[in-house]
Amino acid sequence: MLLRIRNFIGISVLILGLFSCNSENTSVSESGHPLLILKKQNVQEIKDGLSLYSMLQSSLEDAVAIADKAILSGVEVPFPKDPGGGYSHEKHKQNYIEMYNAGLVYQLNGQEKYAAFVREMLYAYAELYPKLGLHPMQKNQAPGKLFWQGLNESVWLVYTIQAYDCIYEYLSLEERRHIEDNLLRKVVEFFTVEDSYSFDRVHNHGTWAVAGVGMTGMVLGDSIMIKKALYSTKLDGSGGFLKQIDKLFSPDGYYAEGPYYQRYALMPFMVFAQALENNMPQLKIFEYKDGVLKKAVTTLLQLTAPDGRFFPFNDAIKEKSWVSAELLFGTNIVYGLNEDSQVLDVAKKQGKVMLSKQGLLVAKAIEHGMNDAFERRPMLIHDGSEGDMGGVAMMRMGKAEDQSTLVFKFSSQGMGHGHFDRLAFMLYDNGNEIIPDYGAARFLNVTAKEGGRYLPENTSWAKHTVAHNTLVVNEESNFNGNQKEADKLSPEILFSQLDNDTFQIVSASDNNCYAGVDYKRSMALVQFDERKYIIDLIEVNSQEVASLDLPMYYNGQVITTNFKYVKPQSMRALGSDNGYQHLWLEGEATQLPATSSVTWMTGTGFYTMSFLSDQNTEFYFTRLGANDPDYNLRNLGGMMLRTKAKGTKLLASVIEMHGNYNPISEAVMQSEGSVEAISLVENTSNTKQLVLSLKNKKQITLHLENNKGKLFIK
Amino acid sequence: MLLRIRNFIGISVLILGLFSCNSENTSVSESGHPLLILKKQNVQEIKDGLSLYSMLQSSLEDAVAIADKAILSGVEVPFPKDPGGGYSHEKHKQNYIEMYNAGLVYQLNGQEKYAAFVREMLYAYAELYPKLGLHPMQKNQAPGKLFWQGLNESVWLVYTIQAYDCIYEYLSLEERRHIEDNLLRKVVEFFTVEDSYSFDRVHNHGTWAVAGVGMTGMVLGDSIMIKKALYSTKLDGSGGFLKQIDKLFSPDGYYAEGPYYQRYALMPFMVFAQALENNMPQLKIFEYKDGVLKKAVTTLLQLTAPDGRFFPFNDAIKEKSWVSAELLFGTNIVYGLNEDSQVLDVAKKQGKVMLSKQGLLVAKAIEHGMNDAFERRPMLIHDGSEGDMGGVAMMRMGKAEDQSTLVFKFSSQGMGHGHFDRLAFMLYDNGNEIIPDYGAARFLNVTAKEGGRYLPENTSWAKHTVAHNTLVVNEESNFNGNQKEADKLSPEILFSQLDNDTFQIVSASDNNCYAGVDYKRSMALVQFDERKYIIDLIEVNSQEVASLDLPMYYNGQVITTNFKYVKPQSMRALGSDNGYQHLWLEGEATQLPATSSVTWMTGTGFYTMSFLSDQNTEFYFTRLGANDPDYNLRNLGGMMLRTKAKGTKLLASVIEMHGNYNPISEAVMQSEGSVEAISLVENTSNTKQLVLSLKNKKQITLHLENNKGKLFIK
Repeated sequence: MLLRIRNFIGISVLILGLFSCNSENTSVSESGHPLLILKKQNVQEIKDGLSLYSMLQSSLEDAVAIADKAILSGVEVPFPKDPGGGYSHEKHKQNYIEMYNAGLVYQLNGQEKYAAFVREMLYAYAELYPKLGLHPMQKNQAPGKLFWQGLNESVWLVYTIQAYDCIYEYLSLEERRHIEDNLLRKVVEFFTVEDSYSFDRVHNHGTWAVAGVGMTGMVLGDSIMIKKALYSTKLDGSGGFLKQIDKLFSPDGYYAEGPYYQRYALMPFMVFAQALENNMPQLKIFEYKDGVLKKAVTTLLQLTAPDGRFFPFNDAIKEKSWVSAELLFGTNIVYGLNEDSQVLDVAKKQGKVMLSKQGLLVAKAIEHGMNDAFERRPMLIHDGSEGDMGGVAMMRMGKAEDQSTLVFKFSSQGMGHGHFDRLAFMLYDNGNEIIPDYGAARFLNVTAKEGGRYLPENTSWAKHTVAHNTLVVNEESNFNGNQKEADKLSPEILFSQLDNDTFQIVSASDNNCYAGVDYKRSMALVQFDERKYIIDLIEVNSQEVASLDLPMYYNGQVITTNFKYVKPQSMRALGSDNGYQHLWLEGEATQLPATSSVTWMTGTGFYTMSFLSDQNTEFYFTRLGANDPDYNLRNLGGMMLRTKAKGTKLLASVIEMHGNYNPISEAVMQSEGSVEAISLVENTSNTKQLVLSLKNKKQITLHLENNKGKLFIK
Repeated sequence: MLLRIRNFIGISVLILGLFSCNSENTSVSESGHPLLILKKQNVQEIKDGLSLYSMLQSSLEDAVAIADKAILSGVEVPFPKDPGGGYSHEKHKQNYIEMYNAGLVYQLNGQEKYAAFVREMLYAYAELYPKLGLHPMQKNQAPGKLFWQGLNESVWLVYTIQAYDCIYEYLSLEERRHIEDNLLRKVVEFFTVEDSYSFDRVHNHGTWAVAGVGMTGMVLGDSIMIKKALYSTKLDGSGGFLKQIDKLFSPDGYYAEGPYYQRYALMPFMVFAQALENNMPQLKIFEYKDGVLKKAVTTLLQLTAPDGRFFPFNDAIKEKSWVSAELLFGTNIVYGLNEDSQVLDVAKKQGKVMLSKQGLLVAKAIEHGMNDAFERRPMLIHDGSEGDMGGVAMMRMGKAEDQSTLVFKFSSQGMGHGHFDRLAFMLYDNGNEIIPDYGAARFLNVTAKEGGRYLPENTSWAKHTVAHNTLVVNEESNFNGNQKEADKLSPEILFSQLDNDTFQIVSASDNNCYAGVDYKRSMALVQFDERKYIIDLIEVNSQEVASLDLPMYYNGQVITTNFKYVKPQSMRALGSDNGYQHLWLEGEATQLPATSSVTWMTGTGFYTMSFLSDQNTEFYFTRLGANDPDYNLRNLGGMMLRTKAKGTKLLASVIEMHGNYNPISEAVMQSEGSVEAISLVENTSNTKQLVLSLKNKKQITLHLENNKGKLFIK
């Protein structure tokens, strides 16, 4: 059979070659089981390591605790009935976790009761599964049988096949045949025949499916399953694992949905890749596409705030951090490949290791204190499978928990979980989120909040452009909120300069998201005299008269302004649609000085935004929470600049990070902003020159010319 | 001279006796200088301890750093000109800190440059001080000369006399005479003659003054100064240190202004007492009034949330915790007296020790790991100098950071910094402040916020009854907000039962704060089946028809209610006065089920308040921030029950702490309240019986009879 592969030709041909030579998959049968992640030949050295490496020991203890509790409760495999959050749903999720842990424990302490428990549960599933039709609560076009979503079923298989692998040699031939014929092959058939659409789809849900099926192929010695997993059910490379790696990660290892989903999507990629590495090392899967899977992990680790939480853009639960079960596989597997001592630092914070050779290596290295502090660097990360769909830039100064991080996002839309947030930014400083991205409107797994699903306000607020720290034209969202249109075109990186400790700048543009309006934004992070400044220049070019809004959200408390504003006796919503209906108009100023400024406090730090105003500029204080009948939105303070443009308009502002409140000594330092005046000295199509005149008579000048930024201080 | 002392007669006579025997103060001249806190005879052992005990070493390094920086900058003693926060004010504060540290450093490393620096600065002050009249920016009836407030001047003396003591033996006789005659005696004269009103006042400002003067007396060998410090300028015991101890602390060691000010007030008490102990051990000052000074420290440590922050009632800055410079003296001195290993735990968290024998002992014990975890206990603390002015109760269950703490306040008003908060409560759980007390409306030392002073909203909001979690009658504050009236009468403790791990209850009443209205509140903390419940019964007896409001503030996010409410399209203030003008009416419900409930989330925990409603009951959601033109108030969510009463009315509610959201695993447990119905089964003047019927068909019954509470579970 001739397979037609349309991706990177050289490598694909190589793989084809390997496959034709190895169609009997001999390596599997020779080495014995388990063979997927925990390998038979490593079991003894892992056992030996238990008494030596405390994280390995405690990780096994955790698994034993789960398995013991499961054995005590007994096997229960309920008939599928409930949607997510309901009893049968949660029970089936619990079951695969229990089988997985019991399988590992059996391998590492040899007690048969654990293997017997897994066998009993697999038998119960083998009894149930053949009787099942599609799940009664199916909610979309890809339902499962055990679960309302096929996705959950794929995850079930990824765990369950590892449990089966662990007890494979404990089972008789007959028992294996029974489980394989009545359960495992049936599940694989469901994925590869009944729901081949999802299986072949280039989407992270597909990755869970191919990982489950491919790993099942390895355990069962079924090379067709493996080939389908790698190349799609059509075996032509139009889908499958390699295509997914090609398409879902940018060459820099960025996943278009953003870090919150990258964390989740990464797990099946890493686990399946490790299984491939263990059993088909000839594939060199970790070197595929220039080692993009390893980069996907290390890039994701960079996409975090100083406390380890993922930058919460797009649909994201803000609490989620790199201390997450899924990312355990990422850090451990990457360490197993290249012994990067910085990854080790994250693994240590995760507090747990994989029960595998990788986990052994991590636990050993941590025991020996080999972990170096993880260092977050200034970085430009390109988006798009070819790296040509915009990206995300992190400007960073300072170190560790106090590092200041300016995140500037000009990536592609990111599909269904993407937000309409072109050219938005976020700011972290002094251990706090200063200028936040809202993330998702969702209380994950909190039943009372729409069963823990995305809330209506995720669409009516969180996805809208006005919910982000970026330009809104005519009070509408990018692409009028049309995701399909937004997915087609991304912003463009104009230039970036990130190799300087005290001056970093990135510039990007978007000419598509608003009809008739082009704009670019240049954001610079500058350190000078113990203070840091963000200089923000937005150049708008509008064919028609357009209203321009520049919202910015802040955590903390307004301290003072250098202008008069009025807070109304009665608060009304700022608008009626596109997210504006959720903003209370909390304060208003229409007479502004040429350089206006607002100081607020977040945590123990002070922040001052200064901006250039003219007679058209209005300023609003906003507060999130209007038209929110069920308290689905968090109460968040905001500011908004409003002006009008026809032709070219430049919005210039500066955000200064300064001073400190020490709650122990009660001492307050530098609580006032230093910028006295902003002036735009030059403003042509090619050149902009902005001068910040400081109260101490010094001047900071930003000069932009021909896609290059220069800084002068005098 | 016959001294008439009107306090504890026995002890006073003893002290008089001691004084007449020791009027030459012989112990001082024999042992040499320094003699106040750091004593000459301990210097060598402290030096020896430096290399052994890391906290001692690092504390000296901190002092060296301050002193070195000061020497580098040189001596500057500006002419007094500015109010608090201004240059001359801050400079004089800095100066005494520098002298104090340089003096200690000189003693511990022997380098003369430090002594010379102190001498030079003392000379500069001796040059300036005799020329000074009252401070030009005096703002109240007790101004200083160097500072706008006499209080600052007293603090200056407490530090400066210690610095002088440290370099005493370095100075020539002539130098001493110069400094003493032109500076120290002049300052003492200012306090004891010109401003004898403040000096003799039984008030913590007076304590700083007597501490400074008394310690100066010890260093100068002037027994009259010491006597004035102990017995007032009239030497008759009508004021002075002993009277202050008698009057300002309750027998339980509670200070009427509350923990935030107790922290501050304690420092001169502890420092002066230690100086007395060192030089007049016959006084047995630490045993005075049954050892109340030691109790004042340990009681204060108990008046903290699990993170060490002081309960923020009355005027309090909420960030302030036991890791505070003033309390360093408290923990170190108490440890020096009784080697309490729990105090040691706090000292360790403070991260620094005194440079004295006490600090040596603390650093040594910590080096040897002798610190036991500080344990917060259920406690009733009586207020009032005789212990008869109400008090504060802490009901506590669980341990360490997760401990649940219900703080019930029925203390006296607490003078000028007191709030009108009779029978209010606060709740901490799971490491968070769940139902907070607002504390003070003040941004301490933030110049842009009224120079860092108390804000107008401290009076218009924070002090008012409606700003607290307690009953408001007819939308007015206790005593109509009249502090003098409020100071006269305190609430009454009815009973307390705190010796049970799963059921604690305290009951208190107030028959004075609202004319024509008596009320009592019983609050119980109950643990049952992994959940904790606060049962709250308020019995009101009103002669006339009165409106009753029960506000409660919450941190976090409303999750759900079991009743319909309406959030208005346009938000208005809830009232026009007494704090109500600052509350936005955010939501409203007038048709309530018999048992109504609201669930919210704070941090990772869930909380449900359920309450008995009738056809008169209304429920409001509120939001702080109306009529706040300068953003002086924090945005805080609230709830309020409103009803009417004539004759007897019982308000019954239950606050349940339940469940958990795990942001790492994303698992949510028990996010729903368990109370299905509340029923008042018995309600006579002597007996109340309240039954909580749980969803799992169990029942929790609280039975109150004759000032006793019983709990039944079935």
